[in-house]
Amino acid sequence: MSGNTFGRRFRVTTFGESHGPALGAIVDGCPPGLALTEADLQGDLDRRRPGRNRLMSARDEADRVEILSGVSEGKTTGTPIALLIRNTDQRPKAYDEMATLFRPSHADYTYFAKYGHRARSGGGRASARETAARVAAGAIARKLLAERFGCEIVAWVDRVGDLTATVDVETVTPDAVAAHAVQCPDDAAAAAMTALIEEVRKAGDTIGGVVAAVARNVPVGLGDPVFDKLEASLGQALLSLPACKGVEIGSGFAGTTMRGSAHNDAFYVDEAGRVRTRTNHSGGVQGGISNGMPIVVRAAFKPVATHFQAQETVDETGAAVTFQARGRHDPCVLPRAVVIVEAMIALVLADAWLAQRGQVGTPP
Amino acid sequence: MSGNTFGRRFRVTTFGESHGPALGAIVDGCPPGLALTEADLQGDLDRRRPGRNRLMSARDEADRVEILSGVSEGKTTGTPIALLIRNTDQRPKAYDEMATLFRPSHADYTYFAKYGHRARSGGGRASARETAARVAAGAIARKLLAERFGCEIVAWVDRVGDLTATVDVETVTPDAVAAHAVQCPDDAAAAAMTALIEEVRKAGDTIGGVVAAVARNVPVGLGDPVFDKLEASLGQALLSLPACKGVEIGSGFAGTTMRGSAHNDAFYVDEAGRVRTRTNHSGGVQGGISNGMPIVVRAAFKPVATHFQAQETVDETGAAVTFQARGRHDPCVLPRAVVIVEAMIALVLADAWLAQRGQVGTPP
Amino acid sequence: MSGNTFGRRFRVTTFGESHGPALGAIVDGCPPGLALTEADLQGDLDRRRPGRNRLMSARDEADRVEILSGVSEGKTTGTPIALLIRNTDQRPKAYDEMATLFRPSHADYTYFAKYGHRARSGGGRASARETAARVAAGAIARKLLAERFGCEIVAWVDRVGDLTATVDVETVTPDAVAAHAVQCPDDAAAAAMTALIEEVRKAGDTIGGVVAAVARNVPVGLGDPVFDKLEASLGQALLSLPACKGVEIGSGFAGTTMRGSAHNDAFYVDEAGRVRTRTNHSGGVQGGISNGMPIVVRAAFKPVATHFQAQETVDETGAAVTFQARGRHDPCVLPRAVVIVEAMIALVLADAWLAQRGQVGTPP
Amino acid sequence: MSGNTFGRRFRVTTFGESHGPALGAIVDGCPPGLALTEADLQGDLDRRRPGRNRLMSARDEADRVEILSGVSEGKTTGTPIALLIRNTDQRPKAYDEMATLFRPSHADYTYFAKYGHRARSGGGRASARETAARVAAGAIARKLLAERFGCEIVAWVDRVGDLTATVDVETVTPDAVAAHAVQCPDDAAAAAMTALIEEVRKAGDTIGGVVAAVARNVPVGLGDPVFDKLEASLGQALLSLPACKGVEIGSGFAGTTMRGSAHNDAFYVDEAGRVRTRTNHSGGVQGGISNGMPIVVRAAFKPVATHFQAQETVDETGAAVTFQARGRHDPCVLPRAVVIVEAMIALVLADAWLAQRGQVGTPP
Repeated sequence: MSGNTFGRRFRVTTFGESHGPALGAIVDGCPPGLALTEADLQGDLDRRRPGRNRLMSARDEADRVEILSGVSEGKTTGTPIALLIRNTDQRPKAYDEMATLFRPSHADYTYFAKYGHRARSGGGRASARETAARVAAGAIARKLLAERFGCEIVAWVDRVGDLTATVDVETVTPDAVAAHAVQCPDDAAAAAMTALIEEVRKAGDTIGGVVAAVARNVPVGLGDPVFDKLEASLGQALLSLPACKGVEIGSGFAGTTMRGSAHNDAFYVDEAGRVRTRTNHSGGVQGGISNGMPIVVRAAFKPVATHFQAQETVDETGAAVTFQARGRHDPCVLPRAVVIVEAMIALVLADAWLAQRGQVGTPP
Repeated sequence: MSGNTFGRRFRVTTFGESHGPALGAIVDGCPPGLALTEADLQGDLDRRRPGRNRLMSARDEADRVEILSGVSEGKTTGTPIALLIRNTDQRPKAYDEMATLFRPSHADYTYFAKYGHRARSGGGRASARETAARVAAGAIARKLLAERFGCEIVAWVDRVGDLTATVDVETVTPDAVAAHAVQCPDDAAAAAMTALIEEVRKAGDTIGGVVAAVARNVPVGLGDPVFDKLEASLGQALLSLPACKGVEIGSGFAGTTMRGSAHNDAFYVDEAGRVRTRTNHSGGVQGGISNGMPIVVRAAFKPVATHFQAQETVDETGAAVTFQARGRHDPCVLPRAVVIVEAMIALVLADAWLAQRGQVGTPP
Repeated sequence: MSGNTFGRRFRVTTFGESHGPALGAIVDGCPPGLALTEADLQGDLDRRRPGRNRLMSARDEADRVEILSGVSEGKTTGTPIALLIRNTDQRPKAYDEMATLFRPSHADYTYFAKYGHRARSGGGRASARETAARVAAGAIARKLLAERFGCEIVAWVDRVGDLTATVDVETVTPDAVAAHAVQCPDDAAAAAMTALIEEVRKAGDTIGGVVAAVARNVPVGLGDPVFDKLEASLGQALLSLPACKGVEIGSGFAGTTMRGSAHNDAFYVDEAGRVRTRTNHSGGVQGGISNGMPIVVRAAFKPVATHFQAQETVDETGAAVTFQARGRHDPCVLPRAVVIVEAMIALVLADAWLAQRGQVGTPP
Repeated sequence: MSGNTFGRRFRVTTFGESHGPALGAIVDGCPPGLALTEADLQGDLDRRRPGRNRLMSARDEADRVEILSGVSEGKTTGTPIALLIRNTDQRPKAYDEMATLFRPSHADYTYFAKYGHRARSGGGRASARETAARVAAGAIARKLLAERFGCEIVAWVDRVGDLTATVDVETVTPDAVAAHAVQCPDDAAAAAMTALIEEVRKAGDTIGGVVAAVARNVPVGLGDPVFDKLEASLGQALLSLPACKGVEIGSGFAGTTMRGSAHNDAFYVDEAGRVRTRTNHSGGVQGGISNGMPIVVRAAFKPVATHFQAQETVDETGAAVTFQARGRHDPCVLPRAVVIVEAMIALVLADAWLAQRGQVGTPP
């Protein structure tokens, strides 16, 4: 991984600012022969898109992806797949009023200090819009894994504020997640979360939460023993998302209060002859390597930094000023983060698979 | 990062199994001119070493590090620094009885499935002993950061089971951490943790917990906007540690229940003219980039997998067997993990500094 | 470097096939604050463009580059610079007749064997058209080096067939190179080369040659002692160009016949106080590191594989067939390779500079 | 590749100075299950070793390699293989007299300018002794390729000064090369080369030459279309060797004088059903990808910089001084370079194979 590149075998390099002409990605290292069209990517992009309902901000981007290379006669060729998404709703002017102050808990100050200039265009690379490129790239990885292994990756909103869903990682489906705009498959929790987000919006405030995800039918043996433990790669992947401040695999923080005798996952052989574990506190990863059980992760997203209450801050000269946000902003990013989390997990697993096939030759 | 290499500018490649002849690392990319002797590394290695007190396992390794290259006349030369630590207490025989069964929640099964053979030597690369090489390498990074920026990195045991310490990240010192064998600077919590670990040991069981850490005097501007966000690099670094199943930066999971109006960190300019924030829910990182405030992270460690109660498992043939552990094992890895967490943070920050100096030229 | 990415600090990732919708590149790692517009890139692209005179093939591509990201208010921002060049003259049909045979000394067979399918689009990534993306990216590196160090990179056609030019590496200028369509600054040699290329064209044949290049005002200290010796990076850069089968730095192959007493470059200090060498058999690189003297390289290009004489070959079924080329093809790629060679040298030096600044801090 | 690391899948990171305590390497990414002992490496190390005959310098190093990790029960485990070679003949004192002057055409000046200090130990990383680590690592790659594909890599001294050997790349054997101390399989040329080297030695001078090499039974499909063309990787590999200033693949510089009609390699299908070419001007690589024909490369080595005639130079203060070399030095490095060239080719091919298996799955 390096700056704007993720992965070493299945490599994604992204570009683009929220209010420049376009954003996109180059996917390098994808195996040849995968059937792929723009329609395969558009579904996930549409799930990420803002403006679909009142839980989300009003920005209206078509987010149409164009495949510029790497696909011939409907199949990947093994060469770089370039993905282009034009920005159609650029409004750099909308941000002018805050051109010289640092919005609290945004990247304005750190960008300025790092690069010596302001990102004049609504957050620059720190904008959540950057994640559209990840979603498009992740859709390729997801299709690759689904076709080869029947791998299923499903994420959902697991918590908003202190409202927590109850979800079975073995059985949760994309349809159940999509059934509610809030992207929570637990009907009762979804209703409560929706009400809470509305309440927060009316208060001009924002709220955070947790996205959980499961990857099923992941081959045994992915991940490396040391710095490329699957937990480490998943952690990097998810903590590279805007607003993500925590990641857990398996039992995570809750597991730290357990005794080893309760936490250990006993092995047995199932009727199909596969080695399985009775419990899955390991979250499908042991010694950094997938063990064939569902991989379970959770990602913590802080509340969106842009709320509509007055805030104390300073400007580039160091003068104290008051900041009052305007414009379009989600009160809660969690519903839109679901597909992005899935994309990042797919990228991690595709990369780990190609690494394993390269070194060991299996799974083919 | 790649397999057994961490970092891209300040790069550490480690090698070695727990029961082979030696382990060590090559540190590549260290700036020339840093005063360095083996004594600079030995202190941290001694902190990691087992067998120092009854909270830890009885294995007796001197863990003497030898610098094989990259240092001339007491200073780094800019060329690779090779570090060698001989194993002096190899007892592969002690593990023979479990040569064909898979210990629950260890890497035995996943290694076997991944590589097609068993790690005959006590966990192979999955052994916690591998972290000695990280500690030695991290000590170089730590010295570099301390000399250039006065950077201080302090970790401590923040929680054992459900016993939580109260620690001030602005003022906690290495001496306060070292004052108790359990490596917790809160006297009362340290006493309770020590009693709990003893109780767990007597029960033949193990327990997990949380290591917290702070990095102070980190230059503003480290970390990159997208895949190399400082949160992402720290997450990868810590989740690559054995038994680590969760990581938080700043407010982490707790922050997800807050409203944005309460979570945002208001900017002000202090008497020294520096931009600071009134609170530090961001944990010193905004938009993936350091903002000059203390960097605060927490790492969750699951309970050690080896306890002394009988466990259900299977062997390589798939037959159900009962496993009864013997030998030397810590009931709680947290105290030894403290210096390892510090090492990984130092490696992340040194790498991020060199990346920033390369691209932007500052800080020099 | 990795597949379609060149460089580690100043990183270029290219994409695109000759007959797909577009090609381009992402430049990641460029320092912020460099003044940059599309016009800065267009000049070099125009130099590479075919169809400019009768020495070159008739393909007519406007090769207009669009900057999609990474530049704001006319300056680089430090974030990825995406470059897009639309293909306007796609004629995939023109290649159909050879869809199942392997053109001799082209990549048809090796692509087929590697990826399991044919590049249906005129050579796929093996097409020389891919180099347009390198030229656009290289123009950014060249501008960066020129502004920081006054670095000048000049390449020229040094040999066609057995016709060799006489050129002074200390004084040769871009204008002198551009004065002849054949891109050779030696008037007499240029005339002879032009006549030879015409003769070869009339014979339906092709011819190879040598491009030489010099980089002046390169800072001392670029390049690393072992695998990243400047010779190694330059070698990889140039040998990654289509049809390039040899590279020399400094005295190269000719130097191997010299005695050490004649080959060594004696040091002296010039009137400006700079350490210089009396001769420059080292080609500006000693121990893999730039020494401040002009860097001198030569790249050998084999004759273009597509000529118009009948050729023996086989098709995908293994059947023997005769191949007769048609369409548009240069009899000699050398004139167009000049700017590409310059671009690759610029990429190598920009990358080496950022690596050196990162590790050592100088030159700033 | 990065600094002191070569390769991306089969990765070698080397360390060590000529006169420090040790040198060595970590080989990361080697497939598990390869039978390997120190004896497998020692043969190649012995071939590289100086002091074997009067053509070589008198330094006496045992060069015993120790495998520190990554091998268990005689087989590679898939984890990093650390290789250690102790220096037994350290004589840093012998170099003191030149501690402040810059030896012409050595790395003294460029090191000083790059790192801000002198390599006090006989050339530091620029010493040819560093290549011992490459040879040990290369021996692992060579064994891997031999066992999987029957791959044979043979290098020889093809030219010394202007004396050129005649060698058949299809049939040349390691035994024929080893039959003469000068490592040239052409008896007549070997005798002449030996006499020339003796003559040069008596004159207190040095001489360069060319090492040629062939790799037979290389699978089709290795190498990538753009920056990782096999020519590019071979070029980087060989140009990273001390004193190497030029590389050719296939027809190389000589091919540039040919017409395309003569240079193209006609395809046919042999009796075994394999696609072959009638000639091999491509040197086994087309479009950057191996085509199954013998891979043929040539590397140019300049004359050794240390000769015994007085030389003009300057010291660190810029004062003009005269340098008179003393001590032990080869008049010609070519014979010792043979095994090093083989090692680098093996590293390139092993890396390319794992890359191809990772992305495409074949060859297995």
